Amino acid sequence: MKNAKEQIESSSYVISNPESHKGNFNKLFNNDNPIRIEIGMGKGTFIYNHALKNPNINYIGIEKFDSVLVRAVQKLEDTNIPNLKLIRMDALDIDKVFNKEIDTIYLNFSDPWPKNRHELRRLTSPVFLAKYDSVFKKDKVINQKTDNRHLFEYSLVSLVNYGYKLEKISLDLYKEEELLKDNIPTEYETRFASNGDTIYMAEFRLQ
Amino acid sequence: MKNAKEQIESSSYVISNPESHKGNFNKLFNNDNPIRIEIGMGKGTFIYNHALKNPNINYIGIEKFDSVLVRAVQKLEDTNIPNLKLIRMDALDIDKVFNKEIDTIYLNFSDPWPKNRHELRRLTSPVFLAKYDSVFKKDKVINQKTDNRHLFEYSLVSLVNYGYKLEKISLDLYKEEELLKDNIPTEYETRFASNGDTIYMAEFRLQ
Repeated sequence: MKNAKEQIESSSYVISNPESHKGNFNKLFNNDNPIRIEIGMGKGTFIYNHALKNPNINYIGIEKFDSVLVRAVQKLEDTNIPNLKLIRMDALDIDKVFNKEIDTIYLNFSDPWPKNRHELRRLTSPVFLAKYDSVFKKDKVINQKTDNRHLFEYSLVSLVNYGYKLEKISLDLYKEEELLKDNIPTEYETRFASNGDTIYMAEFRLQ
Repeated sequence: MKNAKEQIESSSYVISNPESHKGNFNKLFNNDNPIRIEIGMGKGTFIYNHALKNPNINYIGIEKFDSVLVRAVQKLEDTNIPNLKLIRMDALDIDKVFNKEIDTIYLNFSDPWPKNRHELRRLTSPVFLAKYDSVFKKDKVINQKTDNRHLFEYSLVSLVNYGYKLEKISLDLYKEEELLKDNIPTEYETRFASNGDTIYMAEFRLQ
């Protein structure tokens, strides 16, 4: 049995040298379809189901930890989904890897970094918003879901004050039949929602 | 016993001909202190306590219905609060009554008008935001509290897309010790909060 690192390296889904594709990820996919990324994809259920449902959109899942990424890689073994790729990287490096080519960023159940002194590590802090600016193609769309009230409050203030407008918002997603019809849950989300936890969702756009 | 209309007319708190003070409400208060208004003040507990707590700020409570306003008038009998006034009027007429002289608008537990076809009747609809533009002095500050999730979601989208920034937000006010210290509850709020209902709060600013 290969170890995590070997399994990741031998997977055809994983882009091993992402900086070399900067500005040219469309060539990797061999088409000009929109590219959406999920930062912190965990075991990949969300992005995998998105890719299956929308073959005309390209998806790239980003995950920092080998130990987590390998679970997604294992799940994808013996599948062939041409519009899905994975990258192992730290979100802080995102502006070194992409350049004006992303349409949507998904942030699902991100680490809330609850302590004030860790605020800038949150994926919706101004530090990250500035990096996202350079990876987006034209309209900047950020789609967030979380069960963490403080992270969601923080994100609303941070994104709105950065200039993002609100396309939609739900302060209790699992009470909204209409929104749930199109909702693709993450692993965490399914668990939290079945516990009766409140799930928050917002779609932001900056023009 | 006087009827509601008579009690209202004979109260020194009620401004009977508000249009005649347009642009000059500071003269009515005999000072240049900031003026804050509450639209839909109900029985007045919120604005009454605000006025007592902040003698250097002027408050005007607005209420549409005689039957409700009279309850505030009765409560104020035998009091003398120089920085508090009341107006019986429809919020739709707000731009006929005030002109560039208001610092903050409070919207507490406003009618949610849940049907889509009544959307523009909500006090945070673009119809009202345009009217508020002309009543604000400089910075436009709107402070909203509600237990109605859909009204709060609607208000967030409406105000943010109008250009308002978010000064602060709480998606569960009664879980935030720090915010509760300065919070002055309305009659409704006290009842809903003791039922365990979620109370939402946001402060918006447009520059």
